[in-house]
Amino acid sequence: MTTTSLYGPVQADLALVEETLAAVCRVDHEPLAKMLELALSGAGKRIRPALVLLAGTFGHYRLDLLVPLAASVELLHTATLVHDDVIDNSEVRRGRPTVNKAFQNNIAVMVGDYMFAHAAELVTRTGSLEVVKLFAHTLMVMAKGEIGQDVRAYDVRQDVQEYLARIAGKTASLFATACQGGAMVAQVPEPWAKALWDYGHHLGMAFQIVDDILDFTGNEAELGKPVGSDLLQGTLTLPSLLLMQRWPDDNPVQRYFQERRPELVAEAVAIIRASDIPEECHDMARRFGEAAKAALTPLPATAARRTLEGLVDYILQRRS
Amino acid sequence: MTTTSLYGPVQADLALVEETLAAVCRVDHEPLAKMLELALSGAGKRIRPALVLLAGTFGHYRLDLLVPLAASVELLHTATLVHDDVIDNSEVRRGRPTVNKAFQNNIAVMVGDYMFAHAAELVTRTGSLEVVKLFAHTLMVMAKGEIGQDVRAYDVRQDVQEYLARIAGKTASLFATACQGGAMVAQVPEPWAKALWDYGHHLGMAFQIVDDILDFTGNEAELGKPVGSDLLQGTLTLPSLLLMQRWPDDNPVQRYFQERRPELVAEAVAIIRASDIPEECHDMARRFGEAAKAALTPLPATAARRTLEGLVDYILQRRS
Repeated sequence: MTTTSLYGPVQADLALVEETLAAVCRVDHEPLAKMLELALSGAGKRIRPALVLLAGTFGHYRLDLLVPLAASVELLHTATLVHDDVIDNSEVRRGRPTVNKAFQNNIAVMVGDYMFAHAAELVTRTGSLEVVKLFAHTLMVMAKGEIGQDVRAYDVRQDVQEYLARIAGKTASLFATACQGGAMVAQVPEPWAKALWDYGHHLGMAFQIVDDILDFTGNEAELGKPVGSDLLQGTLTLPSLLLMQRWPDDNPVQRYFQERRPELVAEAVAIIRASDIPEECHDMARRFGEAAKAALTPLPATAARRTLEGLVDYILQRRS
Repeated sequence: MTTTSLYGPVQADLALVEETLAAVCRVDHEPLAKMLELALSGAGKRIRPALVLLAGTFGHYRLDLLVPLAASVELLHTATLVHDDVIDNSEVRRGRPTVNKAFQNNIAVMVGDYMFAHAAELVTRTGSLEVVKLFAHTLMVMAKGEIGQDVRAYDVRQDVQEYLARIAGKTASLFATACQGGAMVAQVPEPWAKALWDYGHHLGMAFQIVDDILDFTGNEAELGKPVGSDLLQGTLTLPSLLLMQRWPDDNPVQRYFQERRPELVAEAVAIIRASDIPEECHDMARRFGEAAKAALTPLPATAARRTLEGLVDYILQRRS
């Protein structure tokens, strides 16, 4: 599936979202404008904005309300990436220097804050206080998920259950909110809106699991960041958790958390790649993908629904 | 003037704001709860929430709307402090360890994000999209002001004009918004609301100038942070700007920015203390204070108005 057809009936309207994001970067403060540009103009797939628009097609498809909402979701998402990169001291994201690398860590914190504020401003353009509340609540859930990840860094006493709860907060919540927000703004009937939320949640879970697999199996050029970067930061994800489950007594993950020698991360990457752990992780991602598709059952068989179904397959087979 | 009488007719109602802030700290995530508690339970003067309530007395004084707004202003303010402390790598604030010192820099970033989100949630309780917009806009202005400060760190080519523009964004905007937000929620008649905004802006300017004087003339125990800490971070404020104006060819500020030896900051502090620079700065703060009082002219002569007038005097004579 090519990118041009990936988002089906809303593909063309995503250009309006790009225009809104470009307008966000046009600010009367040159250093800030450059930093926003760096953060927002990367080759992001804009999957969250697409979800907003696709959800909107099941009700009153009003672009004047849906486009600001879609831009806001992307801005919120990008703001969390900017802060994540500060937290992880990351130097590359999508093959470009991060804001904290190109400018300074401390300035990147404020750029993220500015983006959160602008995201809030964009949400108010929907004219719905309920949608503002939804967004505020989602950001609280996301921050909690990220804090959960940070306080457990370099702690081996974690299991798959905790991992799933963490990615539900950190990633799936915004996917679900994108769908639900689009549905709310378009006044999609309640059972369909619920179905869209469910879809978004499960799609987000699948998306994050695939992301976490690629962190081990991808290559630096495709990923736009170093291989094994999660583990290097002390973050356990599904592949490293399964590695520890299989070799509970002696494994490079446990040793890395004790000794902090980067060679041990490379060792863990090699073991995971040579094993069927990636396949086992993919199985779990596939199950979430199937649940996402199943969630769509109540919806009418439109082109948008077929696009949502296709997105599941796209996410499961993506390489970067 | 004692703290008990400082906020006059709204003093008792501030306990409701404290209750709301205490509720914010009660979250089902122990590490986060502790961090929120550390950030929010310090002995802050709660001047911004008091402004919200005082402004509200000039209209329909509805505590069910004003209290969440007042709590939101304090939360927003505290979130910016948490992020400022990360940026400056500060270790002490109001005599207590900062969130970044007690926990970790990276976690403090997320705690601030959580607080922003919660502040947004509290603002929605006012039921007014206009107030949400006002807050979003204010945070954008504040972040821009802070970025302006950071990009100019260790840059001697700054003047008093730029300094005033910076503190207008960084500090006075939230004071003005507290007053304007309270007025909006209470449906205060437009000319009075405008007067309250003006008052808040000028009070905020006076407040920040006094803060910047105290950074040089106070003592560490009263300030709850090291003396000269702004300069140490490469930030020029009014006293150091005047020092450079008086001795343009050779002064410890310029030398510090080149050589980065902390002894030069101590030298600058000593010169400023021995000079009449603090008095000159105070004159400027007093002029902003007078403008704040003058802005109140259109308002009826109520106890709240007298309290607002008294706050100007309090701010001008504060020692910490």
